[in-house]
Amino acid sequence: MVQMRPIIVRYGEIGLKSEFVRRKFEKKLISNIEDAFLRARIECSVVREHGRIFVYVDDIDGACKVLNKVFGIVSFSPAFECSSDKETLKKFGVELLANSFSGGESFAVRVKRTGKHEYTSQEAGAFIGEAILNAYADKNIHVDLKEPKVVLSVEIREKRAYFYLETIEGPLGMPLGSQGKVMGILSTKEHSILAHWLIMKRGCSLDLIYLEKENLEKENDKKGDDETLDTGLGNGLEKRLDVAKERKKKAYENAEKLRRWNPNMKIYDIEVKLGGDENFTKEDYACASEFAFKKGALALVSGETFEELTEKDRFEDNVADMPILFPLIGFSDEEMEKRMKDADLL
Amino acid sequence: MVQMRPIIVRYGEIGLKSEFVRRKFEKKLISNIEDAFLRARIECSVVREHGRIFVYVDDIDGACKVLNKVFGIVSFSPAFECSSDKETLKKFGVELLANSFSGGESFAVRVKRTGKHEYTSQEAGAFIGEAILNAYADKNIHVDLKEPKVVLSVEIREKRAYFYLETIEGPLGMPLGSQGKVMGILSTKEHSILAHWLIMKRGCSLDLIYLEKENLEKENDKKGDDETLDTGLGNGLEKRLDVAKERKKKAYENAEKLRRWNPNMKIYDIEVKLGGDENFTKEDYACASEFAFKKGALALVSGETFEELTEKDRFEDNVADMPILFPLIGFSDEEMEKRMKDADLL
Repeated sequence: MVQMRPIIVRYGEIGLKSEFVRRKFEKKLISNIEDAFLRARIECSVVREHGRIFVYVDDIDGACKVLNKVFGIVSFSPAFECSSDKETLKKFGVELLANSFSGGESFAVRVKRTGKHEYTSQEAGAFIGEAILNAYADKNIHVDLKEPKVVLSVEIREKRAYFYLETIEGPLGMPLGSQGKVMGILSTKEHSILAHWLIMKRGCSLDLIYLEKENLEKENDKKGDDETLDTGLGNGLEKRLDVAKERKKKAYENAEKLRRWNPNMKIYDIEVKLGGDENFTKEDYACASEFAFKKGALALVSGETFEELTEKDRFEDNVADMPILFPLIGFSDEEMEKRMKDADLL
Repeated sequence: MVQMRPIIVRYGEIGLKSEFVRRKFEKKLISNIEDAFLRARIECSVVREHGRIFVYVDDIDGACKVLNKVFGIVSFSPAFECSSDKETLKKFGVELLANSFSGGESFAVRVKRTGKHEYTSQEAGAFIGEAILNAYADKNIHVDLKEPKVVLSVEIREKRAYFYLETIEGPLGMPLGSQGKVMGILSTKEHSILAHWLIMKRGCSLDLIYLEKENLEKENDKKGDDETLDTGLGNGLEKRLDVAKERKKKAYENAEKLRRWNPNMKIYDIEVKLGGDENFTKEDYACASEFAFKKGALALVSGETFEELTEKDRFEDNVADMPILFPLIGFSDEEMEKRMKDADLL
């Protein structure tokens, strides 16, 4: 069996002021990490310790992909674990860098330490660095604390030490579900999912509502019963049915991109009154909010931009039974595109 | 008299699709640039030509500071203007780089051209580059088209040519006032002005409402007339008066930071019912929206964050007579801080 290796996971937002909020955040984050690994069928064991989470896995590459999509993670580092006695640290440091040097590189050892040890952090950095210098003397390497090419980081905690060479940025934000529940209105417009993503990043658990603008399937069924519908109207109906199907397909494709971030997300199809276009009307919002209220949501989230909202008179008329959040209201097209790329939503 | 030099101003958003919208955008942008220079007491003359604006000024440094705060500008370059005949281009290119080389630098000449000339863009780049190479042969310089240290850009338009060495990023967005009018609610919270800034960047003209939470000045005046108020209560009132003054001072300091971007912004003080804290209540919104409606605004803008809005039950209760926009709803503390720094709002 391959030995499981730890990944050090860092988390926390400036906003986490109270101990109570922090605890809730940590609990939710751990449960989300466990869920995500379960879904990816990667075995893991999660340990919380002093403001860090250690995820033990054997499939490191797979695990990194999973952690990359868990809101609330600031950064993470696949690590190697060993005992914290001086000789082991030296030996381990040397072994880990076996493939890091080709000739002439600069390097640095950066040590953080908690617990009682026979050495200080600075001393540990010095003796590990010296061991590396000696071991790879033939590679002509040198120490550069300011701008090293290779950085070996060491976190020493009591009797254990964790070595790592890289730190990968996480998606930041708050753990999904650490805040209230909201309902997103699913749209055919590609940028709209960024709105839902932004609110999920704030910690809200999000489900989606798809507004079936016309219940054409039903009309289509009826058609068979009634011969008078056969001419002309029948063809028009079929065309509208195609458009409606295409629209729904597009909206569901958008939802799939969101599902990368929120795999348990539900999508509810609800019928609304006939209404032709892709923009939401006051009636659409009213239907959506009634449904969202029944499902216990606190607010609706809609992905309309400033320009879309100010078109014609729709700006004046968006009153529903609950607040409608428009997270894209301050974004330009360029900013949306950049954010969507960063969030893997394209 | 110092000769006026042109600054090339680039503008335009992806969103500008129709000719009509583009014209409106340009007209508003030019008028905003002229206003900004007028206020800064810098003489200028503005010319629009082929999707560029040329601002002629003698105080280049002062002008750059002004252009940096005009929404809708993508970038700008202080330039030098000359005639577009071959000999002048060569002479001008050489003269402009008199202080650019100390020894061993790489450089490139980049030419854009419109109009009829005896040379192509590529040829112009070649002969200007050659003249520079010859003129500074003692400085051991060389041409590097990929990663040059010094870039000389040349825009040739008919009989004129514009040389520049740097391109400064503008604030992007849409020209202030090219979209509808909105009312921001002024708050004591520092981050709140970012919400107003984001909406101004979308092109809205914005004025501010300050909610006087308790009309204590009046109460204070009354106190003198009524001896019974003298003991205890009098002191309490003074203390509350101090708090109210402090709050107003802080809010107005926030507004001053916005004024860097929107110098004509008005601030309206309106009285609302007694209410102790810094968060806005349903009644506050109702008062503000009534006032905003009278002033012809389309929407209110409030700088509350997701966390502030979801506190207690305020989330459920933000219905006013007009839409309330919360542009910060999808932002984290870190993102707000970064954006505020970039926008010079700290």
